[in-house]
Amino acid sequence: MAEGRSDGARFFSPAGRHLLGLQGMHPTQIEPILDLAETYALMNRSRKTPRDLLRGRTVINLFFEDSTRTRTSFELAGKRLGADVINMSVAQSSVNKGETLLDTAATLNAMRTDILVVRHAQSGAPALLAKKVEAAVVNAGDGTHEHPTQALLDAVTIRRHLGRISGLTVAICGDVAHSRVARSNIHLLTAMANKVRVVGPPTLVPGAFSALGVEVHYTMEEGLRDADVVMMLRLQRERMSGGQVPSAREYFRFYGLDRRRLDLAKPGALVMHPGPMNRGVEIDSQIADSDQSVIQEQVEMGVAVRMAVLDRLVRGGVS
Amino acid sequence: MAEGRSDGARFFSPAGRHLLGLQGMHPTQIEPILDLAETYALMNRSRKTPRDLLRGRTVINLFFEDSTRTRTSFELAGKRLGADVINMSVAQSSVNKGETLLDTAATLNAMRTDILVVRHAQSGAPALLAKKVEAAVVNAGDGTHEHPTQALLDAVTIRRHLGRISGLTVAICGDVAHSRVARSNIHLLTAMANKVRVVGPPTLVPGAFSALGVEVHYTMEEGLRDADVVMMLRLQRERMSGGQVPSAREYFRFYGLDRRRLDLAKPGALVMHPGPMNRGVEIDSQIADSDQSVIQEQVEMGVAVRMAVLDRLVRGGVS
Amino acid sequence: MAEGRSDGARFFSPAGRHLLGLQGMHPTQIEPILDLAETYALMNRSRKTPRDLLRGRTVINLFFEDSTRTRTSFELAGKRLGADVINMSVAQSSVNKGETLLDTAATLNAMRTDILVVRHAQSGAPALLAKKVEAAVVNAGDGTHEHPTQALLDAVTIRRHLGRISGLTVAICGDVAHSRVARSNIHLLTAMANKVRVVGPPTLVPGAFSALGVEVHYTMEEGLRDADVVMMLRLQRERMSGGQVPSAREYFRFYGLDRRRLDLAKPGALVMHPGPMNRGVEIDSQIADSDQSVIQEQVEMGVAVRMAVLDRLVRGGVS
Repeated sequence: MAEGRSDGARFFSPAGRHLLGLQGMHPTQIEPILDLAETYALMNRSRKTPRDLLRGRTVINLFFEDSTRTRTSFELAGKRLGADVINMSVAQSSVNKGETLLDTAATLNAMRTDILVVRHAQSGAPALLAKKVEAAVVNAGDGTHEHPTQALLDAVTIRRHLGRISGLTVAICGDVAHSRVARSNIHLLTAMANKVRVVGPPTLVPGAFSALGVEVHYTMEEGLRDADVVMMLRLQRERMSGGQVPSAREYFRFYGLDRRRLDLAKPGALVMHPGPMNRGVEIDSQIADSDQSVIQEQVEMGVAVRMAVLDRLVRGGVS
Repeated sequence: MAEGRSDGARFFSPAGRHLLGLQGMHPTQIEPILDLAETYALMNRSRKTPRDLLRGRTVINLFFEDSTRTRTSFELAGKRLGADVINMSVAQSSVNKGETLLDTAATLNAMRTDILVVRHAQSGAPALLAKKVEAAVVNAGDGTHEHPTQALLDAVTIRRHLGRISGLTVAICGDVAHSRVARSNIHLLTAMANKVRVVGPPTLVPGAFSALGVEVHYTMEEGLRDADVVMMLRLQRERMSGGQVPSAREYFRFYGLDRRRLDLAKPGALVMHPGPMNRGVEIDSQIADSDQSVIQEQVEMGVAVRMAVLDRLVRGGVS
Repeated sequence: MAEGRSDGARFFSPAGRHLLGLQGMHPTQIEPILDLAETYALMNRSRKTPRDLLRGRTVINLFFEDSTRTRTSFELAGKRLGADVINMSVAQSSVNKGETLLDTAATLNAMRTDILVVRHAQSGAPALLAKKVEAAVVNAGDGTHEHPTQALLDAVTIRRHLGRISGLTVAICGDVAHSRVARSNIHLLTAMANKVRVVGPPTLVPGAFSALGVEVHYTMEEGLRDADVVMMLRLQRERMSGGQVPSAREYFRFYGLDRRRLDLAKPGALVMHPGPMNRGVEIDSQIADSDQSVIQEQVEMGVAVRMAVLDRLVRGGVS
């Protein structure tokens, strides 16, 4: 199905028509998406978006995990391009009604869905669906695997501020082990020839990460030194088992981002966070609101990147 | 209120402006809806639907029972015709807030709603609402009474495959007693001069069904013989009381649709299911995915039939 | 930020661009909104609304408390003016995820939201948000503080029936203490030179209300005498503490609106209720459905008033 498609379309996945993850992506495939996202960001600011682009197309947000902000971001992206957007939150009870994941997907596919945006607690669920449906599948976060649109929006935010998205030192700090955001960022940033460090306590940063081409650091003091970008991750206590769960106070003392630690990074280093933040746990409240923080801009770029992705997936065959 | 309306509009109910059920409908009233649904199915495939048809009209999905797939189907139908579609899931808690069903409906009516799509656990609730509101009411499933759009979508699916929707032998199998889908199909199929059989264990197929003009069979082997269409029903264990609930394994052994039983029907007999399926309970997984299965097409026709129904209800007075 | 705005825009709040409450409003600021709402009510009846007015604008319904009817009313108002409307119900669990109210608002703001409609259990939450976001904030009910669009819709309903919204005697009856609806109505009605009475048991009508320029009565017989309008309030037992909760039967006996009491008001006095009603508790069922009741019209005017408010907030800078 990918044969007739341009390079731009093939960008997205081996199959050429989904966005399942960023692993294995080539730098020349990333930049055009960032460019397109910047265009959409400008359009969003002026409230003038091409509302005919997805007219008559159906985007379904199929969320097996709750995520109001990501769902809202995709919903806005679809609506601003004129798509019919449908939200489906699949609670546990519905799953218990006995229908399989694949039957749910087949049902949505049969409704002539063009794009299926999927969030699921299990790694690989979107890829499984992609094999079975005609709709293009966008991974909106699966287990501890990937969250590709998050890494793309982080990249466009960095590029807007630092003028480039290569040759930088980026420290990804905190609960790396449970973070699909970290994995997608690692794939994108290493592909773009950045130096990536993962920083956190040994329980949350397995040494095996060094196989992904990143440096592993166990202290903030080491990990932040001379960084251009400091990406803080949300401490996901809900995903930890008993022995792993640190106290908020203790965690902040050793791995929270405060002024003293941030000053070890390059002057004017960017502070990022995928949200929602635990203020006072992984990040000091004043740092979150400081001039160095681009956290709100990440949210803004999130809508723009998702518009770019929907655009490319639907128009992949023609451009 | 129906006086000024054409035959097409009167199709829907004695009052001429709702779709509450299919009981008592005349064959000449059914075919035009199926024709219109086929037109909309083609439009859905090409992503070209008449988005001005319901421009400025309000469709409210008022669901007192959860049903993601039916709600989504109506939502897409409304949006593809350009309507403003609002979803209202009325949880038990809201009902406990003290407002009556009729007050809720009166409220929505006062908001200048054009079409109220209602699902309710109690048989007759949509008909009760229809007496009180100016909006057209569509029954999206009420208790064990009717689910008219399901039977219409089944009919259009059958007609597409077998070239006609009369003179056929249709076996409706399983939990007939609790099934509004079965009742609506019986009304439609008998009105169109088909031979209808209901098949299942005596606890789930009361003998009184013979009064509806159908044959009652208690074994699959008898019921499926030479059938053109095999409609499987979902085993609705959530609606059964203690003594009625069969084990999944035992149920499948006696009443599950497998290859051996399906081969008793006519060669190429259609296999249907309203979804969601309990694979391995009422239907063998391989049969559900076989060439004879038209289950996904039923879903596709569901959107098309609901577009046809919304179209007729809104335009009834002018055509 | 308000400097460049016209008087019409300043109407809404000291900051000139939000609708947070009606306290301190001037009569000349109220009438234009009522006029605009009447225009939109007519448009809603003919299904012809200016769907380009909010094209490309984003309205987010951010509801921290459940309220299907208010949310639906704002959703319809936005859609009928062509806005992209997004619903966000923030359950307790999400709040527990650790994000602050202000972070949630900042996130929505960053998505280039134009209007944020906020319902919150805490008085003052919308005003707090308004200080932090660029979006215009509409208070859709906060704690026991205000519910300004409810009072505006009540005013337009009264004016349509009695020909004016000043010089009237209005009795607001029942659970005044817990009612933001009562407070907003008191502010609007006293600003418009009406005589306002609050009526109810001493536990639910604190004497301190007299400081708001209203008469306080503890019997319906006194409070309703010669009233032009009788506004019943919902008995909000869910907000009461142990000692306050009256039995439904006892409450109705002393403070329910029945025919005998209503006959003490002026002939043809209007009966109003913000909904949802507790029939047989604060209002007799027959009175709720009588010719004097304008309860359904209040709902209709609700959509129209919200359209007027969205219109003014978005166009404030240009008109």
